[in-house]
Amino acid sequence: MVAEKGMLIVVSAPSGTGKGAIIKKLLIEDKNITHSVSATTREPRKGEKDGVSYFFMNKSDFKKMITKGALIEWDEYCGNYYGTPKKYIDDVTAAGGDVILDITVAGAVNIKKECPEAVMIFVLPPSIKELERRIKDRGTDSTADISSRLEFAYSEFNNIGDYEYAVVNDNLDTAVEEVKAIIAAERMKYKRNPLILDNLYKGDLK
Amino acid sequence: MVAEKGMLIVVSAPSGTGKGAIIKKLLIEDKNITHSVSATTREPRKGEKDGVSYFFMNKSDFKKMITKGALIEWDEYCGNYYGTPKKYIDDVTAAGGDVILDITVAGAVNIKKECPEAVMIFVLPPSIKELERRIKDRGTDSTADISSRLEFAYSEFNNIGDYEYAVVNDNLDTAVEEVKAIIAAERMKYKRNPLILDNLYKGDLK
Repeated sequence: MVAEKGMLIVVSAPSGTGKGAIIKKLLIEDKNITHSVSATTREPRKGEKDGVSYFFMNKSDFKKMITKGALIEWDEYCGNYYGTPKKYIDDVTAAGGDVILDITVAGAVNIKKECPEAVMIFVLPPSIKELERRIKDRGTDSTADISSRLEFAYSEFNNIGDYEYAVVNDNLDTAVEEVKAIIAAERMKYKRNPLILDNLYKGDLK
Repeated sequence: MVAEKGMLIVVSAPSGTGKGAIIKKLLIEDKNITHSVSATTREPRKGEKDGVSYFFMNKSDFKKMITKGALIEWDEYCGNYYGTPKKYIDDVTAAGGDVILDITVAGAVNIKKECPEAVMIFVLPPSIKELERRIKDRGTDSTADISSRLEFAYSEFNNIGDYEYAVVNDNLDTAVEEVKAIIAAERMKYKRNPLILDNLYKGDLK
């Protein structure tokens, strides 16, 4: 079942929980979901396409979007701005498509204020030991970095209450199935299908 | 994933939507779910066991339960009382089990007031034509009965707004999978797993 109106799906997780792999697999398996395209002020890299990789724009235009409230969240990173244009989300969802957004815990809190209907998913590691192992396995981090990454992860965990769902990523396939169950359930919500009775009286629902 | 605390799952549907078949299959496939046991003042039939088929009781005791607010919903039918004891639901859910309750639309509205955390599912037929066919196929009803059953179904449809989820029963297996997705998603809700972070710090989540 696909809902009458698409939805915004927000997935957040501290680094080392495997959020990226979950989203990648989900996008392959569910063609009704697209990855959100962010606006940015950084220069396009080789091969990046405007409107596909990012919406590229200059700082003055980006700041105008902030002022107009045209971004549901934004942040500054290494001297450049990054944000999510409200219009892009609205266009995709109005056409029945779902948009997935992977953002930091800090950004996600704003999303819930701007889009109360967003589906908020928090990914957890199966244990602290496993989180530590995954962070170490990335190999490039020094002991101090690992320790500060863990501390940051702990601080992010404290925001779990801003999310509706908690998915434990012990096994990737299971975690993807769980996210798919959440999305399937959300698509069946009556509030996302307000015309279902009209459609029933008009003809077939399926 | 099974939630820390079990949940009450309410499934309602006008007759002819196949609710009974969905619940039967679900109970076979998910052993964490049990069917609610109702209290009744009617006499036990042959083979019926107290506490399994029903909680059998006299009218005076039933009326005391109503007065004490010990029933989350109750109704009178053919001179006997039927109701759902709150204690039964609380005992099963406190132990982590889920309880499924199939009741009329009228009863379900009261449940939501008594148990705001209940998962409310409304089952719809795929079309009015199919609903008509299913009601006729039962064979025992006269034309007048069929017409009044349909009218009653239409009036029940109008209560769909009291339910969180709408499941279309076109194909039984698909409908059961959809109900299972709803239950899986609800079990992942953070509000049903308030100790998840404590458990993460203590050891393994799975």
